[in-house]
Amino acid sequence: MPAKDFYHDTVKVALVKDGWTITDDPLTIAVGGRDLFVDFGAEKLLIAQRRNQKIAVEVKSFLSPSPVSDLELALGQYLVYEDLMRGSYPDYLLYLAVPQATYITFFQEELVQIVIDSRKPKLLIFDEKQEIVTRWQPPIQ
Amino acid sequence: MPAKDFYHDTVKVALVKDGWTITDDPLTIAVGGRDLFVDFGAEKLLIAQRRNQKIAVEVKSFLSPSPVSDLELALGQYLVYEDLMRGSYPDYLLYLAVPQATYITFFQEELVQIVIDSRKPKLLIFDEKQEIVTRWQPPIQ
Repeated sequence: MPAKDFYHDTVKVALVKDGWTITDDPLTIAVGGRDLFVDFGAEKLLIAQRRNQKIAVEVKSFLSPSPVSDLELALGQYLVYEDLMRGSYPDYLLYLAVPQATYITFFQEELVQIVIDSRKPKLLIFDEKQEIVTRWQPPIQ
Repeated sequence: MPAKDFYHDTVKVALVKDGWTITDDPLTIAVGGRDLFVDFGAEKLLIAQRRNQKIAVEVKSFLSPSPVSDLELALGQYLVYEDLMRGSYPDYLLYLAVPQATYITFFQEELVQIVIDSRKPKLLIFDEKQEIVTRWQPPIQ
């Protein structure tokens, strides 16, 4: 199992505050003899819709010296997980958790905007100090 | 500029043997104040079509202990480069160079096949001992 991301526990706290129940830590994807691990599986009862919303969340802290490399790795992981979850977790939405400090700086750059517009990863933005979710992109409900 | 991949020079030799002229080593993509570097730009005169075919090639050696992590990083880099090259190099085809030893083993696994079918990176397979290109997927001409 890979090392936990720096903000793993921060995102866990933020999800619980946001009303989610953590069901898997990590969520295991088994494909053809290999296991991959997404940081979390979580669910929440949406009363208006009378159903359980299920999500998987991969956390990326963007703390390396090269945010572009962090973006490339995060995107590659996200898209691989998305492809592989279609088989084993078809009812889950996959979100990439990104710290607010990265979202309001690096993620506003032209380079990132081009990639996000093109590949459309779902984003969960969290305030790393207050340990709360500040934005779901697209909205979760 | 990032460290060169282990098989950088091997792929360069293989491309030249295959009739390509290396025009850029590396090929620089400049976007909004940041520079990204693809291993090579190359071109070849296709006589039948009376035009120059232009390619960019990113080399991935798949020598880390985790081939799944190598795949995630390679895919992330490839898709970011592909998005960003639309602006500055619209007439280039981007290929991911993968060693034959990886292609005939790991790349035949279900996990990789699902991802390749979904994201469709163009692949250049090279024999790392003979230093030759053994496969273009899709074919280049």
